[in-house]
This record gives sequence, C-alpha cells and structure tokens, in this order.
Amino acid sequence: MSQPDPAAMNWSTENCTIGRAMAILGERWTVVVLREIFNGIRRFDQIHDHAGTPKQVLTNRLAMLCDMGVLVRHPYREPGERERHEYRLTAMGFDVYPVLVAVREWGDRYLADLEGAPAAMLHRDCGASVGVHLVCAAGHHIDSPHDVVTTPGPGARAAALPRTRDA
Amino acid sequence: MSQPDPAAMNWSTENCTIGRAMAILGERWTVVVLREIFNGIRRFDQIHDHAGTPKQVLTNRLAMLCDMGVLVRHPYREPGERERHEYRLTAMGFDVYPVLVAVREWGDRYLADLEGAPAAMLHRDCGASVGVHLVCAAGHHIDSPHDVVTTPGPGARAAALPRTRDA
Repeated sequence: MSQPDPAAMNWSTENCTIGRAMAILGERWTVVVLREIFNGIRRFDQIHDHAGTPKQVLTNRLAMLCDMGVLVRHPYREPGERERHEYRLTAMGFDVYPVLVAVREWGDRYLADLEGAPAAMLHRDCGASVGVHLVCAAGHHIDSPHDVVTTPGPGARAAALPRTRDA
Repeated sequence: MSQPDPAAMNWSTENCTIGRAMAILGERWTVVVLREIFNGIRRFDQIHDHAGTPKQVLTNRLAMLCDMGVLVRHPYREPGERERHEYRLTAMGFDVYPVLVAVREWGDRYLADLEGAPAAMLHRDCGASVGVHLVCAAGHHIDSPHDVVTTPGPGARAAALPRTRDA
C-alpha cells in the first residue's frame, strides 16, 4: 500500500523564512564574513587577510549584506590615507548571532580536528562554554526535535507547485 | 593614530568549524532539503515537488549530504515500481536541528511577509512557540552577544595567511 504524503506536502515553501534567511546566509563566505565582523574584524583588508575571502567575493558579499540591512558602512580615515569604510552590524545583523553559535556548536561536534575546536565562546561572567538550547515561550527546555511540532503559521499558503506523482 | 588590529586577526581561520559547517550547510538548497526531511518529506520526488529544488541540484545535495554523513539512504519499494530510496537523518543530521530553528527564528523576525511567519514550531507538550536561547554550560541564560567572549580553543592555530597591510 502506498504511503500517504507527509502533511507538510500541503504547505507552500514559497514564503519559507528558512529559505529566505539561507538565501542571505546560505553560502560559506557570507557567514564567514559575519563571523569576522562579530570578532571585531570589520575592515575589507582585514577580512581579506584573515579569512582569505577572495576580493571580488568579499566585495559582493559586503554589498549584499549592506543591501539586505545586515551591515552598515561606517567611514574611517587612517593618517595620510583616503577615506575607507568599515562594516558594522545592524540590529538585524546582531540577531544573526544565535545562528552563528548554533553552526559553531554543530561544527565543533562533527567537524573539528583531533586537537579540538579552534575557538571557544565563553560566558563573560563565568567562563563557561556557550551554546544554544531549544526553549519554548513557556520556558520549557526541549531536549529533542521529536518534542517540536511544525505546523502552518499565520502566513501559511497552500502548496501550489505542480505535483509530478500522485497528482 | 592607526587602530590596532583586532586580537582575532592572530588566530587562523583555516580550521574554523563555522566555515566547515557552512561548506555543508552554506547554500540555500542544502538547508531547504534538510528542512523538508525534518518535515517528513524524505523522497526525491516529494522534495522536488514540494520545495521546487531543481532535480540536478537535488541529486547533488542529497549525494553530498550522504557523503558527509548527514543523511543515509533507505530503500523502499511501492507496489509495481522499482526500488527507490528515501533519505533519513543520521545523528549528525538530527543535530542540525538547532541551526534550523535559529535560522527560522531570524528569518521570521526579519524576512516574513506581512501576514506573518509561514510555519510555527511548537512545543509538543504545551503548544508554546520554540526558539533558541544562548545558554552557558553553567546554566546561565545569555541575553546579548556582548556577554560572550570568543577566545582561541584547544585547536587554535596561529594565523598564517599573508598580510597585505601592516605586515
């Protein structure tokens, strides 16, 4: 007997905010550039030198992140040099931080070299390692994805794509 | 007076696990495919139909995610059809979930349409909305990235890239 389609097949993905967020975040260099800026490395040449981001890629990513409202350009001038810009996080950019922490935690667990993680994120007050927890708005800590139900939200749209099977 | 280089300039990015994780996650379709699979949409044709992932891209992403140990192929056979495969999360794949939740939360806040988020992730037990919190290993909830210090970890390497300025 044929398995019924998963319920999620009925909801459209066209306005999925994970998809939209990853269209911004969704490529190694974009997140790497944000990592640099969170680490105080805010200038084009510094990012290029430190992260090895190719110049043309860096130019494109910084322009996109400014256009999308994640970064703003801030002018500075070193003595005897022309005015340049550094890049600062907007509130929207600042709020990417939990994504970065979640990505780092997963990377540390599965992708670190034998000697261990290259960096640690520590709580300034107590020095303990920082990670993300799943928590609900009622304050319950959630241990497993199995304890989370994904349902259509206020902006859910019916799936409209052509169905090539079982149509 | 010239601003001193940020301290993070001294650590290498070559073994950065955020960079490595984003080399896997770092492109819209990869995370979209994982979103589908977390929603129970595990078959090639289903993902193609539902998410609109182009077939060649979907083939590539599924193969990469299997190669990297994020997904495993599991055979199934519908009556009268040839054996096909569905894709299931490994433990490594399962652990991507907080990244997905963090990305969704950020996307919902900044990228949703006026009618609101397309989907909701709810705590199965109480129905409250699920998100990520920054928490340290000592159990303190952390309200701001300013309360987190990033320092070299056990696997930190000295930065080795050529410095084009201030060298």
